[in-house]
Amino acid sequence: MITEIAEILVKPGTDQQFEAGVAAAAPLFQRARGCCSMRLERGIEQPDSYRLVVEWETLEDHEVHFRGSDDFQQWRKLVGEFFAAPPRVIHTRAALTGF
Amino acid sequence: MITEIAEILVKPGTDQQFEAGVAAAAPLFQRARGCCSMRLERGIEQPDSYRLVVEWETLEDHEVHFRGSDDFQQWRKLVGEFFAAPPRVIHTRAALTGF
Repeated sequence: MITEIAEILVKPGTDQQFEAGVAAAAPLFQRARGCCSMRLERGIEQPDSYRLVVEWETLEDHEVHFRGSDDFQQWRKLVGEFFAAPPRVIHTRAALTGF
Repeated sequence: MITEIAEILVKPGTDQQFEAGVAAAAPLFQRARGCCSMRLERGIEQPDSYRLVVEWETLEDHEVHFRGSDDFQQWRKLVGEFFAAPPRVIHTRAALTGF
């Protein structure tokens, strides 16, 4: 299992539309190969900064299968217009679970 | 509930020592007021980049009570020497849980 973290800065005043777009896109992720969970977090210090956090079984499930799918194009259609800049995307693995 | 995300870049070659320090520090977080969970994630693209992810009941539990505690000083003693730069710390709130 790996975690995709996409930092997304949205254009001022588009937060509600962006959040609605992410909600509408949830089924695209839910049916994607190897996609285990998806949630959206919002910055407290910088409210226009969101983090889309998606758990995938493998890196390839995200980078190859999802990014190459029609559903990825649909995802971008739903939310891309609200991006203030290209998202910064990284992937992580669990190193330690404290408690 | 809010989430603290501390991006920590460690000095090359110190990853094992850093991870051991975080493991040793887990009880400091576990006994901290309002601390609900703590885990460590490691970057796949950039393995020297970690994210410490800590859930707190309130922002004040982290910023006032924990940062003002002796246990915070102890935390920094356990891991601070491995930091390649000051951590970048942000806080988020859940905006949407897709699935």
